[in-house]
Amino acid sequence: MNAIDKPFSVTTGPLPGSVKTYEEAAPGVLVPHRRIDLSNGESLMAYDTSGPYSDLEARIDIAKGLAPIRQAWILARGDVEEVKPHPVPTPETSMPEFDRENRPVLKAKAGKAPTQLAYARAGIVTPEMVYVAARENEGRQALAQRFDGDPQGANLPDIVTPEFVRGEIAAGRAIIPANINHPEAEPMIIGRNFLVKINANIGNSIITSSVADEVEKLVWAIRWGGDTVMDLSTGKGIHQIREWILRNAPVPIGTVPIYQALEKVNGKAEDLTFEIFKDTLIEQAEQGVDYVTIHAGLRLKHVPLTAKRVTGIVSRGGAMLAKWCMTHHKENFLYERFDDICDILRAYDIGVSLGDGLRPGSLADANDEAQFAELETLGELAKKAWAKDVQVMIEGPGHVPMHKIKENMDLQLKLCHEAPFYTLGPLVTDIGAGHDHFASAIGAAMIGWMGTAMLCYVTPKEHLGLPDRADVKAGVMAYKIAAHAADIAKGHPGARLRDDAMSRARFSFRWKDQFRLALDSETAQAFHNETLPGEGAEVAHFCSMCGPKFCSMQMSHELKDLASQGLNDMAEKFKAQGGLLYHKV
Amino acid sequence: MNAIDKPFSVTTGPLPGSVKTYEEAAPGVLVPHRRIDLSNGESLMAYDTSGPYSDLEARIDIAKGLAPIRQAWILARGDVEEVKPHPVPTPETSMPEFDRENRPVLKAKAGKAPTQLAYARAGIVTPEMVYVAARENEGRQALAQRFDGDPQGANLPDIVTPEFVRGEIAAGRAIIPANINHPEAEPMIIGRNFLVKINANIGNSIITSSVADEVEKLVWAIRWGGDTVMDLSTGKGIHQIREWILRNAPVPIGTVPIYQALEKVNGKAEDLTFEIFKDTLIEQAEQGVDYVTIHAGLRLKHVPLTAKRVTGIVSRGGAMLAKWCMTHHKENFLYERFDDICDILRAYDIGVSLGDGLRPGSLADANDEAQFAELETLGELAKKAWAKDVQVMIEGPGHVPMHKIKENMDLQLKLCHEAPFYTLGPLVTDIGAGHDHFASAIGAAMIGWMGTAMLCYVTPKEHLGLPDRADVKAGVMAYKIAAHAADIAKGHPGARLRDDAMSRARFSFRWKDQFRLALDSETAQAFHNETLPGEGAEVAHFCSMCGPKFCSMQMSHELKDLASQGLNDMAEKFKAQGGLLYHKV
Repeated sequence: MNAIDKPFSVTTGPLPGSVKTYEEAAPGVLVPHRRIDLSNGESLMAYDTSGPYSDLEARIDIAKGLAPIRQAWILARGDVEEVKPHPVPTPETSMPEFDRENRPVLKAKAGKAPTQLAYARAGIVTPEMVYVAARENEGRQALAQRFDGDPQGANLPDIVTPEFVRGEIAAGRAIIPANINHPEAEPMIIGRNFLVKINANIGNSIITSSVADEVEKLVWAIRWGGDTVMDLSTGKGIHQIREWILRNAPVPIGTVPIYQALEKVNGKAEDLTFEIFKDTLIEQAEQGVDYVTIHAGLRLKHVPLTAKRVTGIVSRGGAMLAKWCMTHHKENFLYERFDDICDILRAYDIGVSLGDGLRPGSLADANDEAQFAELETLGELAKKAWAKDVQVMIEGPGHVPMHKIKENMDLQLKLCHEAPFYTLGPLVTDIGAGHDHFASAIGAAMIGWMGTAMLCYVTPKEHLGLPDRADVKAGVMAYKIAAHAADIAKGHPGARLRDDAMSRARFSFRWKDQFRLALDSETAQAFHNETLPGEGAEVAHFCSMCGPKFCSMQMSHELKDLASQGLNDMAEKFKAQGGLLYHKV
Repeated sequence: MNAIDKPFSVTTGPLPGSVKTYEEAAPGVLVPHRRIDLSNGESLMAYDTSGPYSDLEARIDIAKGLAPIRQAWILARGDVEEVKPHPVPTPETSMPEFDRENRPVLKAKAGKAPTQLAYARAGIVTPEMVYVAARENEGRQALAQRFDGDPQGANLPDIVTPEFVRGEIAAGRAIIPANINHPEAEPMIIGRNFLVKINANIGNSIITSSVADEVEKLVWAIRWGGDTVMDLSTGKGIHQIREWILRNAPVPIGTVPIYQALEKVNGKAEDLTFEIFKDTLIEQAEQGVDYVTIHAGLRLKHVPLTAKRVTGIVSRGGAMLAKWCMTHHKENFLYERFDDICDILRAYDIGVSLGDGLRPGSLADANDEAQFAELETLGELAKKAWAKDVQVMIEGPGHVPMHKIKENMDLQLKLCHEAPFYTLGPLVTDIGAGHDHFASAIGAAMIGWMGTAMLCYVTPKEHLGLPDRADVKAGVMAYKIAAHAADIAKGHPGARLRDDAMSRARFSFRWKDQFRLALDSETAQAFHNETLPGEGAEVAHFCSMCGPKFCSMQMSHELKDLASQGLNDMAEKFKAQGGLLYHKV
């Protein structure tokens, strides 16, 4: 568990053929994009979640953390003040402490609401809103290219303006998770009318993992496209691990505070109290956690509804609270004290992710009374949070067969008043163990198309063990594909540009460009080179799948040549009738 | 290329916890099932594609091939006769020849149609039909358990009877690919009203692979669930490799005969003739190929429709024939001579899989005029084949964004008169290279639910190189998950039994049972044991994902215990109000 055993290094440098560029969206608002340079002189801008780690110019020092790029914006608003930090639990382990140096702990001034929702409602366009607007446009300045799509009720403008962002946040349809104590985070937006986002879970358990492993998992997850990262640590030194993660995280960090609260009562759920929970929440708020899962929707009356389930309660937080409710036969204290919780969240601009403690853990339990009763309560709570100027999203399942996915989305939109939906999969079969990243990403692609704003990844280790670095990448890749497929199906402006560039590179046998345009450039190149290694192969007009004589794309080109040469009367006649095949149009 | 370099062994033995059982569906009709034995004394029957290789009692000798289980049925019908084999090309390589020994070459007697379609139309229920009916029921004798589902127009009976099978084949809605010269194959059925099937492609190219590798890929693909296998070899010794594959294949084998015909004209598509094609077709028919892809639907007039495409023609067969049509400015000879082709197919009961030579190779080209013009022609050809008593399926795309998948299925059903649809994916994004098994299986799951009868897998090497053994398994797994998810969404009787058994095993912490019930039992167990190895861990009430204190399932059980012990008044009161949590119902 001692991080000193390992050198504290993380993966840095750009992806193949890519250059980090910054767009000055407003004075002092520098928005990163990934520019993919192609061999034909073209280039393509892509959304870049990787932070400074992929910037050759950036100086990365994990022990010092990232630059606080939002600090000036936060302080300029004049509604926060430095406070004396809340006492922090002493680590039981030999885990190293991050040296915060002169990073202040901030909190709202009395009576102030320094949240993006409060600003949006007041008509204020914040630098964060300017930032995410530029980011969503992926560097496109001119009118976006529209492709066909079926938005299923989503409202997707040609160009995302800061004002559009403000309006969506004010309406509760989108959130920018951005704790005032996490100034290192690059703002991003989660909402049905924006690009579909993905979350990657990391975190140790008592069994495995160390600080160095977790920070590398963070950097690795965002390198491949993780938009937010949840630290679900449940082992020792939760506070310390989280500090290292936050100070080095250019993406919003989410947590489930009750996991740490449970550690404070030695794992006995029935010993939890609101005071212990509150203490934990403030501790995390001061560290800079951007959004927290709170299982306030699981009410005492819901618990009996799970009695006939095949898999009972599979949410960890849900199970703890059900046990607490049952033991004391009292209403869930998170539900009872939800207004008090929101007062804390507002003071730091922490988004609340209303946890679905009763999500189904099997196809048999999908869309049951327990699940939907809780969803209705989440809708009530969303309104309470909004009344306190707290940004809200709603968590969703779980295990759901394909034919029951749409009902989840439709009900969520209706019962939760269009608050962003944030789903875990859903898995469309229960028997994919070892491949559940994929079994769940089928459901994720579908529900993403239907309107889910963020997809929580599942790794190949789901149901089996704690994911390692390779599992993190596999999970992120499956979910990037699902989220991107959803963006395309919705008809997001520009979403298909990269696919079309890839297809043109394929038809032109530009292998290096194909690798660069692939979501997983490293694997694409490695697979290609496995059977046809070397520079020669990378410009060859075929791959080993078909070999030179059987390449359809090569034959398509020969067809084009044949047609354009007009070698015989019949080809001439053909030309006269309909023109060249595959000429530039 | 010389197989003697390697010992000729393949993977044998049952999957963990499984026993091969045989059901005598009729005298002499022994139908294999996989019985999965669980630690709680329950067992579950599963569809078993693996053939004798997973039977501990079977004697496997690749050099001798499998037992000809259908031979007696074929001969008993009295409509075929032994013929002198067609001359076979001499191998250019040192590839070993399979010794056919006394396996006769059969052909229909003059004027006879020994096809399952002809029998079905004549009201004859063949042993093959009895076999597939029992197989579809997966060993369930009593009334099947129905679960909710949305069949989207499919007609799914509680129990599949031989008569139901006969009716579906007679209507052209299903096929049993079963060449009279491939008596080693265990009959299976492909149709919208049956379980969704998957095909695995294997085959060498000029660049890589040998006989031993290909036979192992076959055995490996069916071990994990491949229902049919296509041999897409394009390298040297195509005839020899195919013989080894067929004699050792307990599943139907499909080919694309024009690949081999092209070898005979040294790769020059313009030199192809009907005579060369016919010669190749007869050669393959006599070997026992069960279904063949024929690109007869690509007509001369369709070629100009591809002119503005981003990726032109991406079907290998399609590109060859387009080149031939353009060079000679003549109609595709496969279209012109389709009746003659059907006469050959009928004489051996080879199913025709009408190839989609104009399938889209990119999202940009999906659902375009070229694709749908060809689909309409495929519908015409289906009727011609049926008129000749030839069994038909229709091939489909390709690359299609999610919002355009349904149009493919709807048009196919309409234009092709409910002939079984057999799709390649479709891929829902173009930028998944290295993970295209998954990018395509999203589309496959969706179109399988909508009514596609068989899903052609895609491996992680798609677009990049020839798949190896590991890629074959990755592709099969992705597609088993997609096909199974489709069966569940359709509401196939019993489809969810295995998922529910898995969920109960999860809730009871029966780890070994979870491994056995997983589609990929080996990976599930390996992943679990990676972080918690050993027997102790396999009965532990937690996994390393959450650790002992955070296991929600464990807490759910504690809840149940608490409730049932009635430790205090409140729990008592709770019991009086609503009863125990998670008691047996």
